[in-house]
Amino acid sequence: MKLLKERIQKDGTVKEGNVLKVDQFLNHQMDIELLNEIGKEFKRRFADKKIEKILTIESSGIGIACIAAQYFHVPVVFAKKSQSVNLDGESFITKIESFTHKRTYDVIVSKKYLKKGEHILIIDDFMANGCAVNGLLDILETAGAVVEGVGIVIEKGFQDGGKMIRERGIQVESLAIVDGMDAEKGTVTFREA
Amino acid sequence: MKLLKERIQKDGTVKEGNVLKVDQFLNHQMDIELLNEIGKEFKRRFADKKIEKILTIESSGIGIACIAAQYFHVPVVFAKKSQSVNLDGESFITKIESFTHKRTYDVIVSKKYLKKGEHILIIDDFMANGCAVNGLLDILETAGAVVEGVGIVIEKGFQDGGKMIRERGIQVESLAIVDGMDAEKGTVTFREA
Repeated sequence: MKLLKERIQKDGTVKEGNVLKVDQFLNHQMDIELLNEIGKEFKRRFADKKIEKILTIESSGIGIACIAAQYFHVPVVFAKKSQSVNLDGESFITKIESFTHKRTYDVIVSKKYLKKGEHILIIDDFMANGCAVNGLLDILETAGAVVEGVGIVIEKGFQDGGKMIRERGIQVESLAIVDGMDAEKGTVTFREA
Repeated sequence: MKLLKERIQKDGTVKEGNVLKVDQFLNHQMDIELLNEIGKEFKRRFADKKIEKILTIESSGIGIACIAAQYFHVPVVFAKKSQSVNLDGESFITKIESFTHKRTYDVIVSKKYLKKGEHILIIDDFMANGCAVNGLLDILETAGAVVEGVGIVIEKGFQDGGKMIRERGIQVESLAIVDGMDAEKGTVTFREA
């Protein structure tokens, strides 16, 4: 997605340790016009799929998922990271490891909001080693839901999350795939579409 | 807001300890059509204000703020709860106490995304004792930003957050004000508009 790649080049910053910061427009401050273009693009890429609900994970996936959901005309469910006193009753729970925060946490979705046979699109802001998406896929498998695809805004193509999930036969659509970053030069290299 | 109050009556559940659960449509599963109506109503109530940015707090404020921002044509910034390795540089930090989670945490906004003199609307899903909103107001005061108002989806009118913030001369618009709840009967009493 050209508009997104140009924005990453313009306003993203590269830090040591393969960290790409896009908090100017995606995951701290959010450019809602860009999010609308991202939502339209997800709709275009999953146009032939029957999608009944979008599943994402807090926090930075939520805004993207909500804006995208307007183009699919479906509700959004966001998985919560760690038990809350407001989440009672039975829940689907899995453990995931965060690349960003360097720790493991529980991810929870209420059983009320994921039903057997429901057709689900996963949306998230980033994918690197795929731990967050794999956690959501675990939950969907336990729920008996139908995974229609995974929509990612930025994939780190030099880590193996995307490859592993595509090898399972799941349609993964990443709007920008970063193949390399140079912190010294501040440059980002994208995979050709 | 009639549509919202009807939805709370229909799909909200009341638990012991003045807990109102609205995770069927607002803060776990999100009804995007309802969120659009909420966004339009915030725009109507703050129509005469100059608003340049919406500030919210993770996680459940994010979806509401992003959908509402479409009607104001402004970006959203969400305050983060606890330091992340991806948030470098200088940040505004304050401490707030969570009613839901019964703990204190740091709330952080990068100084890059809140400027002196910027006109800000705060949006959040719930207000009870007002700790989250007060934390955001602290940050805005430190930043030297102009607070144009506070938009809340559900206010617990029997707690004093709303009253205290209105007494400071800030326009607080709550789309549903709950004056009482009865866990045994499962009923919610709203303040007359």
